[in-house]
Amino acid sequence: MNYRMLANFFGQILRIGGLLMCIPLIVALIYGESHTYIAFIIPIVLQLVGGSLLVRLIPKNSSMFAQEGFVCVALTWVLLSAVGALPFFLSGSIPNYMDAFFETVSGFTTTGATVLTNIEAMPKGILFWRSLTHWIGGMGILVFVLMFLPKAQAKKTSMMHVMRAEMPGPSVGKISPKAGDTARILYAMYIVLTAAEVILLLIGGMNLYEALIHAFSTAGTGGFSCLNASIAEQSAFLQYVITVFMFLFSLNFNLYYFVILKKWKEALKSEELRVFAVIVAVSVAVITLDIHAQYDTLEHAFRAASFQTVSIVSTTGFVSENFDLWPVLSRVLMVVLMFIGACAGSTGGGMKVSRIMILIKDAVRDLGQLAHPRRVKSIRLEGKPVDEQTVNNASTYLQFYVILLVLSVILVAVFDEMDMVSTFTSVVTCLNNVGPGMGEIVGATGNFSTLSLGSKAVLSFCMLAGRLEVFPMLIIFFPSTWKRA
Amino acid sequence: MNYRMLANFFGQILRIGGLLMCIPLIVALIYGESHTYIAFIIPIVLQLVGGSLLVRLIPKNSSMFAQEGFVCVALTWVLLSAVGALPFFLSGSIPNYMDAFFETVSGFTTTGATVLTNIEAMPKGILFWRSLTHWIGGMGILVFVLMFLPKAQAKKTSMMHVMRAEMPGPSVGKISPKAGDTARILYAMYIVLTAAEVILLLIGGMNLYEALIHAFSTAGTGGFSCLNASIAEQSAFLQYVITVFMFLFSLNFNLYYFVILKKWKEALKSEELRVFAVIVAVSVAVITLDIHAQYDTLEHAFRAASFQTVSIVSTTGFVSENFDLWPVLSRVLMVVLMFIGACAGSTGGGMKVSRIMILIKDAVRDLGQLAHPRRVKSIRLEGKPVDEQTVNNASTYLQFYVILLVLSVILVAVFDEMDMVSTFTSVVTCLNNVGPGMGEIVGATGNFSTLSLGSKAVLSFCMLAGRLEVFPMLIIFFPSTWKRA
Repeated sequence: MNYRMLANFFGQILRIGGLLMCIPLIVALIYGESHTYIAFIIPIVLQLVGGSLLVRLIPKNSSMFAQEGFVCVALTWVLLSAVGALPFFLSGSIPNYMDAFFETVSGFTTTGATVLTNIEAMPKGILFWRSLTHWIGGMGILVFVLMFLPKAQAKKTSMMHVMRAEMPGPSVGKISPKAGDTARILYAMYIVLTAAEVILLLIGGMNLYEALIHAFSTAGTGGFSCLNASIAEQSAFLQYVITVFMFLFSLNFNLYYFVILKKWKEALKSEELRVFAVIVAVSVAVITLDIHAQYDTLEHAFRAASFQTVSIVSTTGFVSENFDLWPVLSRVLMVVLMFIGACAGSTGGGMKVSRIMILIKDAVRDLGQLAHPRRVKSIRLEGKPVDEQTVNNASTYLQFYVILLVLSVILVAVFDEMDMVSTFTSVVTCLNNVGPGMGEIVGATGNFSTLSLGSKAVLSFCMLAGRLEVFPMLIIFFPSTWKRA
Repeated sequence: MNYRMLANFFGQILRIGGLLMCIPLIVALIYGESHTYIAFIIPIVLQLVGGSLLVRLIPKNSSMFAQEGFVCVALTWVLLSAVGALPFFLSGSIPNYMDAFFETVSGFTTTGATVLTNIEAMPKGILFWRSLTHWIGGMGILVFVLMFLPKAQAKKTSMMHVMRAEMPGPSVGKISPKAGDTARILYAMYIVLTAAEVILLLIGGMNLYEALIHAFSTAGTGGFSCLNASIAEQSAFLQYVITVFMFLFSLNFNLYYFVILKKWKEALKSEELRVFAVIVAVSVAVITLDIHAQYDTLEHAFRAASFQTVSIVSTTGFVSENFDLWPVLSRVLMVVLMFIGACAGSTGGGMKVSRIMILIKDAVRDLGQLAHPRRVKSIRLEGKPVDEQTVNNASTYLQFYVILLVLSVILVAVFDEMDMVSTFTSVVTCLNNVGPGMGEIVGATGNFSTLSLGSKAVLSFCMLAGRLEVFPMLIIFFPSTWKRA
């Protein structure tokens, strides 16, 4: 490990993190929440001063390999979450630091699991910061940072390692060979889509503050709301608008780039898009039928089914219905949708549609080869053969994913005496960055406030491992990672 | 597919199946249960006549490849379960044929999930047949058949394909290069161990009938009892005896062969044995601590913990305690133990300890290679490198296992409105051939009687897929499998 390079890297991260935190400070200033100013100013100063000191450590050798990429990504997320928790803690909004850390990790990883019980009582600047972490985390902290790095550094192809380690999905489509350009193009599309949602939410009757909060949460597929009832008490129009945007933000952003290039056909031909659309359509249809007896009109049942299906599969986690009261088929489907998650290259979590497609195609191919050992063929996705390294990574991912799921469920059961469904789904929802779980404690109307600190530590790790797709968070535990280069 | 060979093969199977069914007929004769005679005689005649007709189809080419091996195994199990259900159905013990089929599949696959609500009211011959299916299914129906095949046919190395498709675990250790000899050696050890248990159960105060029933169920790691309360009302001595034998039958039978050859050291050095022993010891210790407040003495808590831990991890499924009332940690561990299962080459089910070890070692190796792409190394088990085909099969197994688990849970939720825990664990317990699940319906004190026929069909498939380790039950759905050779 190249420690000087690491220190220099974190220096740059911290400086940008400090600037980022000025935004919620401005919101606090606008609303005159003077008791919270210091809660922002302290971490801002810490980051700017600490960052400026660290960047002075110029590495002799700044080349980065896969291992360094993973480590940079993992530690950046841990570091910015640790610092990002300070406003919650210092303002007294979340009196326990571990709780504040959980909430911040939940924010950056766009999970949306919360320890807050009375959200509407919180200062507006604090809630703004909470939702802003969703927006930044959705597209990726490092993708954000890359936009601001000096061109000379961002140009280095080695920065692709960093992006690759952070981008969701089994393989990264490069929009541009330069990491910095890719980052700027992605953020441009991200900003346009977010702005479109803000406008529609304003039209639907939200004020600018609420519109921004909910647009940030939708864009990052996070799920934090500034309302205690989440989206349950909003108008049908607003629920539909949010449903559509949750869907849009769970698609691969490369598709929007195709659209910009006027390659409509290519965008609509996407195999992953089609499979994802079928999953959503079938789930909405089945759930609508399954729950319609519980609702006054078929429209209401359809709206409830489509909102919650898209909210869960996009891993946003907004709640418009108490789905814990639905029939078991709908509840089972919700849990399955949590695991599936969104498309690769989106802001959503979960296992990703294309990774599941690779795993299924790989399994079918291997079974065929067991029966007919002489046949050798590669699997295809989006019309192209998938290289064996990608296939192998997907199956390694599945192996670690299962191990992590099982160990985490056991640990949560060690720390907290909950019902089985809450115990299991608290891990599922965190590992897949969804937000709400199921059962008596962490279900649609519940939250994570009563869980012990041990469980919150385990679940924080799950959220980070889920967002970074497992490998970076595990590599930091390899002793060989920390040998001096 | 070589259809003549298939027909000839099933002819031989049916003749042996007919002879096997004479044993419970004798038991019915001893107890003078005259109303059940015909329920045995009809399927016996059907099998002997049908078998004799089919064996006249002499195949022109009797060579068998991997594909034929899988198909023979899958269809043999389905066929013998379909015929084996007849005594239950024809005697009126189980009035619905689908229920009878479920019970027979549960027997042969050594699952032990039952649709019976008042077991003690059943005829003794019928219950004997029910437990005998455990004993035969445990070591393998085809291993049983292989003992009786004419030497010329059993000698063919191609029969190894059949054995390999039926034997549990990621790789089969051949005791003898001849399949027939391997089968006879295995059954000799199996009979000796079963007899030892019968003697100890007799000493503990069971009558011969009860001792045989419970020894068959233990030996096959099945779990059917002839008592409504399973093992709950038995003496501490009997509970400990059964605990020890459940453990012994979940070990790889190759170890007993080492012991016969006086290679004690080699047997005790087994990596899988050691890991399995650690899993059991840790689980017993944790559960004892977790539940001891619910029991009068520490001994009682230890006995309860060790009985249920071994019963579940061996996938036997005997019940001595209502573990649904235990704290959540113990319940979570029970579900995890269901998935782990026994050692490869045992009569137990589940994923198998050595397969899980391969999956974990493979995942760690692949993660290391992601960080250091230039390192290439193979993984080792039992001191030997594991060939990549075995590793690849384990990960294909995991992929299909997860797919099957998810689809089955969804289907059970379609067919039955149960609580989430019952919905999930009914599939878990069947796929891993355990027996009891958890939750309100299929928990320790529950059974599968109230489930719909749709769920029973799904769960029957799960039991067969679990016992045959997924691949054979899937290959029969490949259209290419059924092309004429």
